[in-house]
Amino acid sequence: MQRICDFDTLTGSLRSLPTRKRVAVVCPGDSHTEYVIRRALEEQTADFLLVDGGLTRWNIGEVCRLYPGRVEVRPAATPDDAARMAVEMVREGHADVLMKGSINTDNLLRAVLDKERGLLERGRVMSHVTAIEAPGYSKLLFATDVAVIPRPTLDQFDAMLRYAVSVCRSLGMAVPRVALLHCTEKVSEKFPHTLSYEELKRRAREGAYGDVFVDGPMDVKTACDPESGELKGIKSPVCGNADVLVFPNIESGNTFYKTMSLFGRARMAGMLCGTTAPVVVASRADTGDSKYTSLALACLASAE
Amino acid sequence: MQRICDFDTLTGSLRSLPTRKRVAVVCPGDSHTEYVIRRALEEQTADFLLVDGGLTRWNIGEVCRLYPGRVEVRPAATPDDAARMAVEMVREGHADVLMKGSINTDNLLRAVLDKERGLLERGRVMSHVTAIEAPGYSKLLFATDVAVIPRPTLDQFDAMLRYAVSVCRSLGMAVPRVALLHCTEKVSEKFPHTLSYEELKRRAREGAYGDVFVDGPMDVKTACDPESGELKGIKSPVCGNADVLVFPNIESGNTFYKTMSLFGRARMAGMLCGTTAPVVVASRADTGDSKYTSLALACLASAE
Repeated sequence: MQRICDFDTLTGSLRSLPTRKRVAVVCPGDSHTEYVIRRALEEQTADFLLVDGGLTRWNIGEVCRLYPGRVEVRPAATPDDAARMAVEMVREGHADVLMKGSINTDNLLRAVLDKERGLLERGRVMSHVTAIEAPGYSKLLFATDVAVIPRPTLDQFDAMLRYAVSVCRSLGMAVPRVALLHCTEKVSEKFPHTLSYEELKRRAREGAYGDVFVDGPMDVKTACDPESGELKGIKSPVCGNADVLVFPNIESGNTFYKTMSLFGRARMAGMLCGTTAPVVVASRADTGDSKYTSLALACLASAE
Repeated sequence: MQRICDFDTLTGSLRSLPTRKRVAVVCPGDSHTEYVIRRALEEQTADFLLVDGGLTRWNIGEVCRLYPGRVEVRPAATPDDAARMAVEMVREGHADVLMKGSINTDNLLRAVLDKERGLLERGRVMSHVTAIEAPGYSKLLFATDVAVIPRPTLDQFDAMLRYAVSVCRSLGMAVPRVALLHCTEKVSEKFPHTLSYEELKRRAREGAYGDVFVDGPMDVKTACDPESGELKGIKSPVCGNADVLVFPNIESGNTFYKTMSLFGRARMAGMLCGTTAPVVVASRADTGDSKYTSLALACLASAE
């Protein structure tokens, strides 16, 4: 597979998947979700199972007629019902990806995380992977975790790293470069995440994550700006050339995400990993374009 | 005083101070520090006490001759000696601002934090205030703490807020708008800093910080982007219009700082507050321009 370095190539490459993915959408009522569905149908990049929990403000019947065999609609009494039904369909293999429409994220996650009938197997870690296309950076940049895990334990860091690397590979990156983020290069007991980083690097050297470069602790600039590493005299295949940024806590991850979006004028996409199928939980404020890119990311990741 | 909204006005306004500030520089050996000194002398914006700990690679004698009465040079045996001497001179009132040259930050801070002969009075909190000029933001933005306090306690948050507001006032902002940062708007025991935020807001309402708006928790985008707050239906004089961002921990503050500098193409300046005189500790990688702006910020703040 050709390596994907920007969002247009990412969405475009959906067409080259051997089979179209089927996406279960919970409450496809809003206009951004409508945009995603119509675009994927038109570009022949995905099929849909629409679980409608009411309040749909566009003509679902029309797309069923326009694209026969590619859209199935299931009515549900409430958004919570819709979430339960969609999760059930994914569990039974009727859909490859779960996508949030206008349902509240907390309500969707309740169904996803249900111990008996959800999508997270016992003992698995659920985490969020963000893809970022930033002006001035020559390739896609992945960040984790900007949304789900407040203060990762070693096990959670390990899972975050695995998921991000796996997403990179599904986009054609042979040897992902992973930066473990902190304010400085110093490992210290005062900052327990830097001790976890030492263990992650040890595991990486032992081959736990396959063909990969893992380095840190280092700051955002050292990870993404070749000059900064040189000034500091650091020699590492990760410095100035990171594909993945692993953040020490949710506040720093979220700060990066929001700052890149607002001040870095970056395009963002994202998905939940660790579940039996990828889950797209783009927020209601996201543009249709951003939601479509998130869907494409999830479809490519589920094809791995 | 006219409100200062960008760095050029900030450095320019140094000229309008009633008296020129005197700056003690520890180890003025490097070319960036030379640039700052020569520029301030030429523009008549500051006078200098240069405590030279060796390794100076430019002609200090020349500036003494060129600007008679405005430059004093003191030799020191080592950088540590230079730090001790410069701190002593500031303590005795011979200089208004302390500035780091090519000495290591840790070594300088050892002299600054010395319990008997340093610049931090017993029981005071030392914190870092960063000023940011970002393309696309219509005014200066202040962030704290990106460099010193790992995980602020309530007392430390209180001091950080006071220092940042005081710096804003020294730049002519009548009613600073302070955003208390987190990933969401939710106050929760799971995130103890959000509980501190509640107390800070209570104190602000009671007038502890003077004429000021304090609100949060909120994320970077809600604080700095008017649209985000509107989308979420939040009404606050701080949303989308923040002057000060108070970060919950050093990792998130540092991430903001580095991301703004690299991806936000922002200009940065900074200083230490809480000490008996402001301390400029710009890092060696900073440009001469950035160092000069930091010096200007410290001189204006010390004129308060």
